[in-house]
Amino acid sequence: MSTISLAQGTTVIEAAFGRARELQLKPLTIAVLDAGGHIVALARQDGSSNLRPGIAIAKASGALDLGVSSRKIGEMALERPTFVNALSAIASAGVVPAAGGVIVAAENGDILGAIGVTGDLSDNDELCALAGAQAAGLRALA
Amino acid sequence: MSTISLAQGTTVIEAAFGRARELQLKPLTIAVLDAGGHIVALARQDGSSNLRPGIAIAKASGALDLGVSSRKIGEMALERPTFVNALSAIASAGVVPAAGGVIVAAENGDILGAIGVTGDLSDNDELCALAGAQAAGLRALA
Amino acid sequence: MSTISLAQGTTVIEAAFGRARELQLKPLTIAVLDAGGHIVALARQDGSSNLRPGIAIAKASGALDLGVSSRKIGEMALERPTFVNALSAIASAGVVPAAGGVIVAAENGDILGAIGVTGDLSDNDELCALAGAQAAGLRALA
Amino acid sequence: MSTISLAQGTTVIEAAFGRARELQLKPLTIAVLDAGGHIVALARQDGSSNLRPGIAIAKASGALDLGVSSRKIGEMALERPTFVNALSAIASAGVVPAAGGVIVAAENGDILGAIGVTGDLSDNDELCALAGAQAAGLRALA
Repeated sequence: MSTISLAQGTTVIEAAFGRARELQLKPLTIAVLDAGGHIVALARQDGSSNLRPGIAIAKASGALDLGVSSRKIGEMALERPTFVNALSAIASAGVVPAAGGVIVAAENGDILGAIGVTGDLSDNDELCALAGAQAAGLRALA
Repeated sequence: MSTISLAQGTTVIEAAFGRARELQLKPLTIAVLDAGGHIVALARQDGSSNLRPGIAIAKASGALDLGVSSRKIGEMALERPTFVNALSAIASAGVVPAAGGVIVAAENGDILGAIGVTGDLSDNDELCALAGAQAAGLRALA
Repeated sequence: MSTISLAQGTTVIEAAFGRARELQLKPLTIAVLDAGGHIVALARQDGSSNLRPGIAIAKASGALDLGVSSRKIGEMALERPTFVNALSAIASAGVVPAAGGVIVAAENGDILGAIGVTGDLSDNDELCALAGAQAAGLRALA
Repeated sequence: MSTISLAQGTTVIEAAFGRARELQLKPLTIAVLDAGGHIVALARQDGSSNLRPGIAIAKASGALDLGVSSRKIGEMALERPTFVNALSAIASAGVVPAAGGVIVAAENGDILGAIGVTGDLSDNDELCALAGAQAAGLRALA
Protein backbone atom coordinates (compact mmCIF):
# COMPACT_ATOMS: atom_id res chain seq x y z
CA MET A 1 0.00 0.00 0.00
CA SER A 2 1.76 3.16 -1.13
CA THR A 3 -0.85 5.82 -0.51
CA ILE A 4 -3.84 6.73 1.65
CA SER A 5 -7.14 5.31 0.40
CA LEU A 6 -10.31 7.37 0.39
CA ALA A 7 -11.66 4.93 2.99
CA GLN A 8 -8.74 5.80 5.27
CA GLY A 9 -9.18 9.51 4.56
CA THR A 10 -12.83 9.31 5.56
CA THR A 11 -11.92 7.45 8.75
CA VAL A 12 -9.29 10.10 9.58
CA ILE A 13 -11.84 12.89 9.19
CA GLU A 14 -14.56 11.18 11.24
CA ALA A 15 -12.19 10.31 14.07
CA ALA A 16 -10.65 13.79 14.11
CA PHE A 17 -14.09 15.39 14.29
CA GLY A 18 -14.98 12.91 17.06
CA ARG A 19 -11.96 14.01 19.10
CA ALA A 20 -12.86 17.65 18.48
CA ARG A 21 -16.35 17.06 19.88
CA GLU A 22 -14.89 15.45 23.01
CA LEU A 23 -12.57 18.45 23.46
CA GLN A 24 -15.40 20.88 22.59
CA LEU A 25 -13.27 22.67 20.00
CA LYS A 26 -14.29 25.38 17.55
CA PRO A 27 -15.39 24.39 14.02
CA LEU A 28 -12.51 22.64 12.23
CA THR A 29 -11.40 21.98 8.69
CA ILE A 30 -9.49 18.77 7.99
CA ALA A 31 -7.50 17.88 4.87
CA VAL A 32 -6.04 14.47 4.07
CA LEU A 33 -3.40 14.44 1.32
CA ASP A 34 -1.56 11.62 -0.43
CA ALA A 35 2.23 11.42 -0.45
CA GLY A 36 2.35 13.66 -3.54
CA GLY A 37 0.51 16.42 -1.69
CA HIS A 38 -2.77 15.96 -3.59
CA ILE A 39 -6.10 16.04 -1.73
CA VAL A 40 -7.73 12.69 -0.92
CA ALA A 41 -10.48 14.08 1.31
CA LEU A 42 -11.38 17.41 2.87
CA ALA A 43 -14.22 18.51 5.17
CA ARG A 44 -15.03 21.94 6.60
CA GLN A 45 -17.42 22.11 9.56
CA ASP A 46 -20.19 24.71 9.50
CA GLY A 47 -18.81 28.04 10.71
CA SER A 48 -15.19 27.29 9.81
CA SER A 49 -13.96 30.39 7.95
CA ASN A 50 -13.15 30.83 4.24
CA LEU A 51 -9.39 30.22 4.27
CA ARG A 52 -9.54 27.14 6.52
CA PRO A 53 -9.37 24.70 3.58
CA GLY A 54 -6.26 26.52 2.33
CA ILE A 55 -4.68 26.46 5.80
CA ALA A 56 -5.46 22.76 6.38
CA ILE A 57 -4.00 21.87 2.98
CA ALA A 58 -0.89 24.00 3.61
CA LYS A 59 -0.28 22.51 7.05
CA ALA A 60 -0.28 19.04 5.48
CA SER A 61 1.48 19.84 2.21
CA GLY A 62 4.10 21.97 3.95
CA ALA A 63 4.87 19.02 6.21
CA LEU A 64 5.33 16.78 3.16
CA ASP A 65 7.32 19.51 1.39
CA LEU A 66 9.89 19.66 4.20
CA GLY A 67 9.65 16.14 5.62
CA VAL A 68 8.71 17.28 9.14
CA SER A 69 5.49 18.15 10.98
CA SER A 70 4.10 21.68 10.76
CA ARG A 71 4.86 21.93 14.51
CA LYS A 72 8.55 21.58 13.67
CA ILE A 73 8.17 24.16 10.90
CA GLY A 74 6.79 26.45 13.62
CA GLU A 75 9.92 25.87 15.73
CA MET A 76 12.04 26.51 12.64
CA ALA A 77 10.17 29.80 12.13
CA LEU A 78 11.13 31.03 15.59
CA GLU A 79 14.83 30.50 14.85
CA ARG A 80 14.88 31.37 11.17
CA PRO A 81 11.79 33.43 10.22
CA THR A 82 13.18 34.67 6.93
CA PHE A 83 13.96 31.12 5.84
CA VAL A 84 10.41 29.96 6.51
CA ASN A 85 8.99 33.03 4.76
CA ALA A 86 11.11 32.16 1.75
CA LEU A 87 9.73 28.62 1.70
CA SER A 88 6.18 30.01 1.76
CA ALA A 89 6.90 31.79 -1.48
CA ILE A 90 8.28 28.64 -3.13
CA ALA A 91 5.75 26.06 -1.96
CA SER A 92 2.83 26.13 -4.41
CA ALA A 93 0.25 25.47 -1.67
CA GLY A 94 2.15 27.40 1.00
CA VAL A 95 3.72 26.37 4.31
CA VAL A 96 2.09 26.97 7.73
CA PRO A 97 4.46 27.25 10.72
CA ALA A 98 2.06 25.97 13.40
CA ALA A 99 1.08 22.55 14.80
CA GLY A 100 -1.75 20.59 13.17
CA GLY A 101 -0.03 19.15 10.10
CA VAL A 102 1.45 15.64 10.43
CA ILE A 103 3.02 13.24 7.97
CA VAL A 104 1.61 9.71 8.16
CA ALA A 105 3.45 6.51 7.31
CA ALA A 106 2.83 2.77 6.99
CA GLU A 107 4.12 0.30 9.57
CA ASN A 108 7.24 -0.20 7.42
CA GLY A 109 7.97 3.53 7.42
CA ASP A 110 6.79 4.33 3.89
CA ILE A 111 5.32 7.81 3.77
CA LEU A 112 1.67 7.57 2.74
CA GLY A 113 0.51 11.17 3.02
CA ALA A 114 -0.32 13.88 5.54
CA ILE A 115 -3.17 15.25 7.63
CA GLY A 116 -3.79 18.95 8.23
CA VAL A 117 -6.21 20.31 10.83
CA THR A 118 -7.08 23.96 11.55
CA GLY A 119 -9.70 25.97 13.42
CA ASP A 120 -8.80 25.85 17.12
CA LEU A 121 -5.52 26.39 18.99
CA SER A 122 -2.82 24.66 16.98
CA ASP A 123 -2.02 22.23 19.82
CA ASN A 124 -5.66 21.11 19.78
CA ASP A 125 -5.66 20.90 15.99
CA GLU A 126 -2.73 18.49 16.25
CA LEU A 127 -4.49 16.32 18.83
CA CYS A 128 -7.31 15.82 16.33
CA ALA A 129 -4.87 15.02 13.51
CA LEU A 130 -3.21 12.39 15.70
CA ALA A 131 -6.56 10.87 16.69
CA GLY A 132 -7.48 10.67 13.00
CA ALA A 133 -4.22 8.97 12.07
CA GLN A 134 -4.57 6.42 14.84
CA ALA A 135 -8.14 5.53 13.91
CA ALA A 136 -7.06 4.83 10.33
CA GLY A 137 -4.11 2.67 11.34
CA LEU A 138 -1.58 5.26 10.21
CA ARG A 139 1.63 6.10 12.04
CA ALA A 140 2.05 9.87 12.53
CA LEU A 141 5.66 11.05 12.30
CA ALA A 142 6.84 13.53 14.94
CA MET B 1 -30.06 28.29 5.68
CA SER B 2 -27.89 30.44 3.43
CA THR B 3 -25.12 28.02 2.49
CA ILE B 4 -24.45 24.32 2.08
CA SER B 5 -23.83 22.52 5.37
CA LEU B 6 -21.13 19.89 5.75
CA ALA B 7 -23.96 17.37 6.31
CA GLN B 8 -25.38 18.28 2.90
CA GLY B 9 -21.93 18.16 1.33
CA THR B 10 -21.38 14.65 2.69
CA THR B 11 -24.77 13.55 1.37
CA VAL B 12 -23.95 14.98 -2.06
CA ILE B 13 -20.69 13.05 -2.22
CA GLU B 14 -22.18 9.73 -1.06
CA ALA B 15 -25.10 9.95 -3.48
CA ALA B 16 -22.85 10.96 -6.38
CA PHE B 17 -20.53 8.02 -5.71
CA GLY B 18 -23.60 5.77 -5.45
CA ARG B 19 -24.77 6.87 -8.91
CA ALA B 20 -21.26 6.33 -10.25
CA ARG B 21 -21.25 2.74 -8.98
CA GLU B 22 -24.60 2.09 -10.71
CA LEU B 23 -23.21 3.49 -13.95
CA GLN B 24 -19.91 1.65 -13.41
CA LEU B 25 -17.89 4.80 -13.98
CA LYS B 26 -14.15 5.34 -13.57
CA PRO B 27 -12.80 6.71 -10.25
CA LEU B 28 -14.25 10.16 -9.59
CA THR B 29 -13.35 13.23 -7.57
CA ILE B 30 -16.18 15.34 -6.20
CA ALA B 31 -16.00 18.85 -4.76
CA VAL B 32 -18.80 20.68 -2.95
CA LEU B 33 -18.30 24.45 -2.60
CA ASP B 34 -20.26 27.14 -0.77
CA ALA B 35 -21.69 30.12 -2.68
CA GLY B 36 -18.43 32.04 -2.28
CA GLY B 37 -16.49 29.25 -3.99
CA HIS B 38 -14.83 27.88 -0.83
CA ILE B 39 -14.59 24.10 -0.30
CA VAL B 40 -17.11 22.48 2.05
CA ALA B 41 -16.24 18.84 1.24
CA LEU B 42 -14.07 17.01 -1.27
CA ALA B 43 -13.43 13.32 -1.90
CA ARG B 44 -11.16 11.62 -4.43
CA GLN B 45 -11.70 7.92 -5.15
CA ASP B 46 -8.70 5.61 -5.24
CA GLY B 47 -7.10 5.79 -8.69
CA SER B 48 -8.44 9.27 -9.52
CA SER B 49 -5.42 11.23 -10.79
CA ASN B 50 -3.48 14.11 -9.24
CA LEU B 51 -5.22 17.10 -10.78
CA ARG B 52 -8.76 15.76 -10.26
CA PRO B 53 -9.30 17.81 -7.07
CA GLY B 54 -8.26 20.96 -8.99
CA ILE B 55 -10.57 20.09 -11.89
CA ALA B 56 -13.54 19.32 -9.64
CA ILE B 57 -13.01 22.60 -7.77
CA ALA B 58 -12.68 24.58 -11.01
CA LYS B 59 -15.79 23.04 -12.58
CA ALA B 60 -17.78 24.16 -9.53
CA SER B 61 -16.12 27.53 -8.90
CA GLY B 62 -16.15 28.44 -12.59
CA ALA B 63 -19.91 27.83 -12.60
CA LEU B 64 -20.32 30.16 -9.60
CA ASP B 65 -17.96 32.70 -11.16
CA LEU B 66 -20.07 33.04 -14.30
CA GLY B 67 -23.50 32.12 -12.98
CA VAL B 68 -24.01 29.16 -15.37
CA SER B 69 -23.16 25.43 -15.36
CA SER B 70 -19.77 24.28 -16.61
CA ARG B 71 -21.70 22.58 -19.47
CA LYS B 72 -22.78 26.03 -20.65
CA ILE B 73 -19.22 27.29 -20.28
CA GLY B 74 -18.25 24.41 -22.58
CA GLU B 75 -20.77 25.61 -25.17
CA MET B 76 -19.42 29.15 -24.78
CA ALA B 77 -15.91 27.82 -25.39
CA LEU B 78 -16.92 26.33 -28.75
CA GLU B 79 -18.16 29.71 -29.96
CA ARG B 80 -15.63 31.96 -28.26
CA PRO B 81 -12.54 29.99 -27.24
CA THR B 82 -10.33 33.00 -26.62
CA PHE B 83 -12.96 34.57 -24.37
CA VAL B 84 -13.12 31.46 -22.20
CA ASN B 85 -9.32 31.25 -22.10
CA ALA B 86 -9.28 34.85 -20.91
CA LEU B 87 -11.67 34.00 -18.09
CA SER B 88 -9.42 31.09 -17.05
CA ALA B 89 -6.63 33.57 -16.52
CA ILE B 90 -8.80 35.82 -14.35
CA ALA B 91 -10.57 33.18 -12.25
CA SER B 92 -8.38 32.38 -9.24
CA ALA B 93 -9.32 28.68 -9.25
CA GLY B 94 -9.69 28.46 -13.03
CA VAL B 95 -12.66 27.68 -15.27
CA VAL B 96 -13.33 24.26 -16.84
CA PRO B 97 -15.42 24.29 -20.05
CA ALA B 98 -16.98 20.82 -19.72
CA ALA B 99 -20.09 19.36 -18.06
CA GLY B 100 -19.91 18.23 -14.43
CA GLY B 101 -20.10 21.56 -12.57
CA VAL B 102 -23.55 22.69 -11.44
CA ILE B 103 -24.76 25.57 -9.28
CA VAL B 104 -27.18 24.53 -6.54
CA ALA B 105 -29.90 26.69 -5.03
CA ALA B 106 -32.46 26.62 -2.25
CA GLU B 107 -36.16 26.23 -3.00
CA ASN B 108 -36.50 30.04 -2.99
CA GLY B 109 -33.80 30.40 -5.66
CA ASP B 110 -30.97 31.62 -3.39
CA ILE B 111 -27.64 30.27 -4.64
CA LEU B 112 -26.14 28.02 -1.95
CA GLY B 113 -23.04 26.70 -3.69
CA ALA B 114 -21.90 24.36 -6.44
CA ILE B 115 -20.92 20.75 -7.09
CA GLY B 116 -18.06 19.70 -9.37
CA VAL B 117 -17.48 16.13 -10.54
CA THR B 118 -14.64 14.81 -12.72
CA GLY B 119 -13.12 11.48 -13.73
CA ASP B 120 -15.36 9.95 -16.37
CA LEU B 121 -16.99 11.37 -19.53
CA SER B 122 -18.23 14.84 -18.64
CA ASP B 123 -21.87 13.86 -19.35
CA ASN B 124 -21.52 11.07 -16.80
CA ASP B 125 -19.79 13.39 -14.35
CA GLU B 126 -22.81 15.69 -14.57
CA LEU B 127 -25.26 12.83 -13.95
CA CYS B 128 -23.47 12.16 -10.68
CA ALA B 129 -23.49 15.84 -9.71
CA LEU B 130 -27.25 15.97 -10.33
CA ALA B 131 -27.84 12.80 -8.30
CA GLY B 132 -25.84 14.31 -5.45
CA ALA B 133 -27.81 17.55 -5.53
CA GLN B 134 -31.13 15.72 -5.52
CA ALA B 135 -30.18 13.51 -2.57
CA ALA B 136 -29.29 16.59 -0.51
CA GLY B 137 -32.50 18.43 -1.35
CA LEU B 138 -30.70 20.99 -3.50
CA ARG B 139 -32.00 22.39 -6.77
CA ALA B 140 -29.41 22.19 -9.56
CA LEU B 141 -29.52 25.15 -11.98
CA ALA B 142 -29.27 24.38 -15.71
CA MET C 1 -7.53 67.23 -14.79
CA SER C 2 -5.45 64.14 -15.43
CA THR C 3 -7.59 61.41 -13.95
CA ILE C 4 -11.17 60.42 -13.21
CA SER C 5 -12.53 61.74 -9.92
CA LEU C 6 -14.61 59.60 -7.59
CA ALA C 7 -17.50 61.97 -8.34
CA GLN C 8 -17.18 61.15 -12.04
CA GLY C 9 -16.86 57.45 -11.27
CA THR C 10 -20.06 57.55 -9.25
CA THR C 11 -21.84 59.37 -12.06
CA VAL C 12 -20.62 56.79 -14.59
CA ILE C 13 -21.98 53.94 -12.49
CA GLU C 14 -25.37 55.55 -11.84
CA ALA C 15 -25.87 56.44 -15.50
CA ALA C 16 -24.77 53.01 -16.69
CA PHE C 17 -27.20 51.32 -14.30
CA GLY C 18 -29.91 53.74 -15.48
CA ARG C 19 -29.33 52.72 -19.11
CA ALA C 20 -29.39 49.04 -18.05
CA ARG C 21 -32.78 49.52 -16.42
CA GLU C 22 -34.15 51.13 -19.62
CA LEU C 23 -32.84 48.19 -21.66
CA GLN C 24 -34.03 45.70 -19.01
CA LEU C 25 -30.64 44.00 -18.83
CA LYS C 26 -29.47 41.30 -16.45
CA PRO C 27 -27.63 42.30 -13.24
CA LEU C 28 -24.42 44.14 -14.15
CA THR C 29 -21.08 44.87 -12.56
CA ILE C 30 -19.35 48.13 -13.46
CA ALA C 31 -15.74 49.11 -12.80
CA VAL C 32 -14.25 52.58 -13.31
CA LEU C 33 -10.44 52.70 -13.39
CA ASP C 34 -7.99 55.61 -13.52
CA ALA C 35 -5.40 55.88 -16.30
CA GLY C 36 -2.99 53.70 -14.32
CA GLY C 37 -5.52 50.86 -14.25
CA HIS C 38 -6.35 51.25 -10.54
CA ILE C 39 -9.98 51.07 -9.35
CA VAL C 40 -11.77 54.37 -8.65
CA ALA C 41 -15.24 52.88 -8.16
CA LEU C 42 -16.90 49.50 -8.59
CA ALA C 43 -20.49 48.32 -8.07
CA ARG C 44 -22.00 44.85 -8.48
CA GLN C 45 -25.79 44.57 -8.73
CA ASP C 46 -27.55 41.91 -6.66
CA GLY C 47 -27.43 38.62 -8.55
CA SER C 48 -24.33 39.46 -10.59
CA SER C 49 -22.04 36.41 -10.27
CA ASN C 50 -18.76 36.05 -8.37
CA LEU C 51 -16.25 36.74 -11.14
CA ARG C 52 -18.10 39.78 -12.50
CA PRO C 53 -15.88 42.26 -10.61
CA GLY C 54 -12.81 40.53 -12.10
CA ILE C 55 -14.29 40.60 -15.61
CA ALA C 56 -15.34 44.26 -15.37
CA ILE C 57 -11.88 45.23 -14.14
CA ALA C 58 -10.17 43.18 -16.88
CA LYS C 59 -12.33 44.65 -19.65
CA ALA C 60 -11.28 48.12 -18.54
CA SER C 61 -7.65 47.42 -17.64
CA GLY C 62 -7.10 45.32 -20.76
CA ALA C 63 -8.31 48.28 -22.83
CA LEU C 64 -5.83 50.57 -21.08
CA ASP C 65 -3.11 47.92 -21.37
CA LEU C 66 -3.43 47.79 -25.16
CA GLY C 67 -4.75 51.29 -25.91
CA VAL C 68 -7.94 50.08 -27.62
CA SER C 69 -11.44 49.11 -26.50
CA SER C 70 -12.12 45.55 -25.37
CA ARG C 71 -14.36 45.26 -28.48
CA LYS C 72 -11.24 45.71 -30.62
CA ILE C 73 -9.41 43.17 -28.49
CA GLY C 74 -12.28 40.81 -29.33
CA GLU C 75 -11.73 41.43 -33.05
CA MET C 76 -8.01 40.89 -32.54
CA ALA C 77 -8.81 37.58 -30.83
CA LEU C 78 -10.67 36.32 -33.91
CA GLU C 79 -7.64 36.94 -36.12
CA ARG C 80 -4.88 36.11 -33.68
CA PRO C 81 -6.21 34.03 -30.78
CA THR C 82 -2.83 32.83 -29.56
CA PHE C 83 -1.58 36.41 -29.41
CA VAL C 84 -4.51 37.49 -27.24
CA ASN C 85 -4.11 34.41 -25.03
CA ALA C 86 -0.48 35.35 -24.54
CA LEU C 87 -1.46 38.87 -23.46
CA SER C 88 -3.86 37.40 -20.89
CA ALA C 89 -0.96 35.68 -19.25
CA ILE C 90 1.12 38.87 -19.12
CA ALA C 91 -1.52 41.37 -18.02
CA SER C 92 -1.71 41.28 -14.22
CA ALA C 93 -5.49 41.82 -14.16
CA GLY C 94 -6.10 39.89 -17.40
CA VAL C 95 -7.51 40.92 -20.78
CA VAL C 96 -11.11 40.24 -21.89
CA PRO C 97 -11.72 40.00 -25.65
CA ALA C 98 -15.35 41.17 -25.69
CA ALA C 99 -17.12 44.54 -25.88
CA GLY C 100 -17.89 46.46 -22.69
CA GLY C 101 -14.50 47.97 -21.86
CA VAL C 102 -13.85 51.51 -23.14
CA ILE C 103 -11.03 53.98 -22.59
CA VAL C 104 -12.22 57.47 -21.65
CA ALA C 105 -10.44 60.74 -22.41
CA ALA C 106 -10.70 64.44 -21.68
CA GLU C 107 -11.79 66.92 -24.36
CA ASN C 108 -8.11 67.53 -25.20
CA GLY C 109 -7.52 63.82 -25.78
CA ASP C 110 -5.69 63.04 -22.52
CA ILE C 111 -6.52 59.52 -21.40
CA LEU C 112 -8.23 59.68 -18.01
CA GLY C 113 -9.13 56.04 -17.38
CA ALA C 114 -11.48 53.29 -18.51
CA ILE C 115 -14.91 51.82 -17.84
CA GLY C 116 -15.66 48.09 -17.82
CA VAL C 117 -19.19 46.64 -17.82
CA THR C 118 -20.21 42.97 -17.69
CA GLY C 119 -23.31 40.87 -17.04
CA ASP C 120 -25.42 40.97 -20.20
CA LEU C 121 -24.57 40.49 -23.90
CA SER C 122 -21.32 42.30 -24.51
CA ASP C 123 -22.93 44.72 -26.99
CA ASN C 124 -25.39 45.74 -24.28
CA ASP C 125 -22.60 46.00 -21.71
CA GLU C 126 -20.87 48.49 -24.02
CA LEU C 127 -24.04 50.58 -24.45
CA CYS C 128 -24.09 51.03 -20.68
CA ALA C 129 -20.40 51.92 -20.56
CA LEU C 130 -20.95 54.58 -23.23
CA ALA C 131 -23.99 56.00 -21.40
CA GLY C 132 -21.90 56.21 -18.25
CA ALA C 133 -19.06 58.01 -19.99
CA GLN C 134 -21.41 60.53 -21.58
CA ALA C 135 -23.16 61.34 -18.30
CA ALA C 136 -19.80 62.10 -16.68
CA GLY C 137 -18.62 64.32 -19.51
CA LEU C 138 -16.00 61.82 -20.64
CA ARG C 139 -15.14 61.03 -24.25
CA ALA C 140 -15.13 57.26 -24.94
CA LEU C 141 -12.47 56.19 -27.45
CA ALA C 142 -13.54 53.69 -30.13
CA MET D 1 -31.33 38.11 2.95
CA SER D 2 -28.16 36.06 3.02
CA THR D 3 -25.65 38.55 1.66
CA ILE D 4 -24.99 42.28 1.49
CA SER D 5 -27.04 44.05 -1.16
CA LEU D 6 -25.55 46.76 -3.38
CA ALA D 7 -27.94 49.18 -1.66
CA GLN D 8 -26.37 48.28 1.70
CA GLY D 9 -22.88 48.52 0.21
CA THR D 10 -23.61 52.01 -1.06
CA THR D 11 -24.97 53.05 2.33
CA VAL D 12 -21.84 51.68 4.04
CA ILE D 13 -19.58 53.70 1.76
CA GLU D 14 -21.52 56.96 2.11
CA ALA D 15 -21.69 56.70 5.89
CA ALA D 16 -18.02 55.78 6.19
CA PHE D 17 -17.03 58.76 4.06
CA GLY D 18 -19.34 60.95 6.18
CA ARG D 19 -17.56 59.85 9.35
CA ALA D 20 -14.20 60.50 7.68
CA ARG D 21 -15.25 64.07 6.86
CA GLU D 22 -16.25 64.66 10.49
CA LEU D 23 -12.88 63.32 11.65
CA GLN D 24 -11.08 65.25 8.87
CA LEU D 25 -9.23 62.15 7.72
CA LYS D 26 -6.98 61.69 4.70
CA PRO D 27 -8.48 60.33 1.45
CA LEU D 28 -9.86 56.84 2.03
CA THR D 29 -10.65 53.77 -0.03
CA ILE D 30 -13.53 51.56 1.10
CA ALA D 31 -14.37 48.04 -0.05
CA VAL D 32 -17.54 46.13 0.77
CA LEU D 33 -17.37 42.37 0.13
CA ASP D 34 -19.97 39.59 0.30
CA ALA D 35 -19.46 36.61 2.61
CA GLY D 36 -17.49 34.77 -0.06
CA GLY D 37 -14.99 37.63 -0.32
CA HIS D 38 -16.25 39.01 -3.65
CA ILE D 39 -16.57 42.79 -4.14
CA VAL D 40 -20.05 44.31 -3.87
CA ALA D 41 -18.95 47.97 -3.92
CA LEU D 42 -15.69 49.89 -3.81
CA ALA D 43 -14.89 53.61 -3.81
CA ARG D 44 -11.52 55.40 -3.75
CA GLN D 45 -11.47 59.08 -2.84
CA ASP D 46 -9.41 61.47 -4.94
CA GLY D 47 -5.81 61.37 -3.78
CA SER D 48 -6.01 57.87 -2.28
CA SER D 49 -2.98 56.00 -3.67
CA ASN D 50 -2.73 53.16 -6.18
CA LEU D 51 -2.71 50.13 -3.88
CA ARG D 52 -5.51 51.38 -1.61
CA PRO D 53 -8.14 49.27 -3.39
CA GLY D 54 -5.97 46.19 -2.90
CA ILE D 55 -5.41 47.02 0.78
CA ALA D 56 -9.09 47.69 1.45
CA ILE D 57 -10.03 44.41 -0.24
CA ALA D 58 -7.37 42.46 1.69
CA LYS D 59 -8.38 43.95 5.05
CA ALA D 60 -11.93 42.76 4.44
CA SER D 61 -11.18 39.42 2.75
CA GLY D 62 -8.48 38.55 5.26
CA ALA D 63 -11.01 39.05 8.05
CA LEU D 64 -13.43 36.69 6.30
CA ASP D 65 -10.62 34.22 5.59
CA LEU D 66 -9.74 33.87 9.27
CA GLY D 67 -13.07 34.70 10.90
CA VAL D 68 -11.73 37.65 12.93
CA SER D 69 -11.25 41.41 12.35
CA SER D 70 -8.06 42.66 10.70
CA ARG D 71 -7.31 44.34 14.07
CA LYS D 72 -7.08 40.87 15.63
CA ILE D 73 -4.92 39.71 12.74
CA GLY D 74 -2.64 42.63 13.62
CA GLU D 75 -2.41 41.41 17.22
CA MET D 76 -1.69 37.90 15.93
CA ALA D 77 1.10 39.32 13.76
CA LEU D 78 2.85 40.82 16.79
CA GLU D 79 2.99 37.43 18.50
CA ARG D 80 3.50 35.22 15.47
CA PRO D 81 4.80 37.26 12.52
CA THR D 82 5.91 34.28 10.43
CA PHE D 83 2.52 32.62 10.83
CA VAL D 84 0.73 35.72 9.52
CA ASN D 85 3.23 36.02 6.66
CA ALA D 86 2.48 32.40 5.79
CA LEU D 87 -1.25 33.17 5.63
CA SER D 88 -0.57 36.11 3.31
CA ALA D 89 1.01 33.70 0.86
CA ILE D 90 -2.01 31.38 0.97
CA ALA D 91 -4.83 33.94 0.88
CA SER D 92 -5.57 34.76 -2.76
CA ALA D 93 -6.30 38.44 -2.03
CA GLY D 94 -3.77 38.68 0.81
CA VAL D 95 -4.17 39.41 4.51
CA VAL D 96 -3.54 42.84 6.12
CA PRO D 97 -2.59 42.79 9.82
CA ALA D 98 -3.98 46.22 10.79
CA ALA D 99 -7.33 47.58 11.97
CA GLY D 100 -9.93 48.67 9.39
CA GLY D 101 -11.33 45.34 8.24
CA VAL D 102 -14.47 44.10 9.99
CA ILE D 103 -16.80 41.16 9.38
CA VAL D 104 -20.49 42.10 9.33
CA ALA D 105 -23.37 39.85 10.28
CA ALA D 106 -27.16 39.83 10.29
CA GLU D 107 -29.12 40.13 13.54
CA ASN D 108 -29.26 36.30 13.74
CA GLY D 109 -25.47 36.06 13.54
CA ASP D 110 -25.18 34.88 9.90
CA ILE D 111 -22.04 36.32 8.33
CA LEU D 112 -23.06 38.58 5.43
CA GLY D 113 -19.72 40.00 4.33
CA ALA D 114 -17.00 42.41 5.38
CA ILE D 115 -15.94 46.05 5.14
CA GLY D 116 -12.35 47.20 4.58
CA VAL D 117 -11.19 50.80 4.99
CA THR D 118 -7.71 52.20 4.39
CA GLY D 119 -6.01 55.59 3.96
CA ASP D 120 -5.62 57.11 7.46
CA LEU D 121 -4.36 55.67 10.75
CA SER D 122 -5.76 52.18 11.04
CA ASP D 123 -7.74 53.06 14.20
CA ASN D 124 -9.45 55.82 12.26
CA ASP D 125 -10.02 53.52 9.29
CA GLU D 126 -11.85 51.15 11.64
CA LEU D 127 -14.04 53.94 13.06
CA CYS D 128 -15.24 54.62 9.54
CA ALA D 129 -15.88 50.93 8.85
CA LEU D 130 -17.97 50.71 12.03
CA ALA D 131 -19.93 53.85 11.13
CA GLY D 132 -20.64 52.34 7.72
CA ALA D 133 -21.83 49.05 9.18
CA GLN D 134 -24.14 50.80 11.65
CA ALA D 135 -25.72 53.00 8.97
CA ALA D 136 -26.56 49.92 6.89
CA GLY D 137 -28.08 48.02 9.81
CA LEU D 138 -25.20 45.52 9.90
CA ARG D 139 -23.64 44.12 13.06
CA ALA D 140 -19.83 44.42 13.04
CA LEU D 141 -18.06 41.48 14.73
CA ALA D 142 -15.18 42.28 17.09
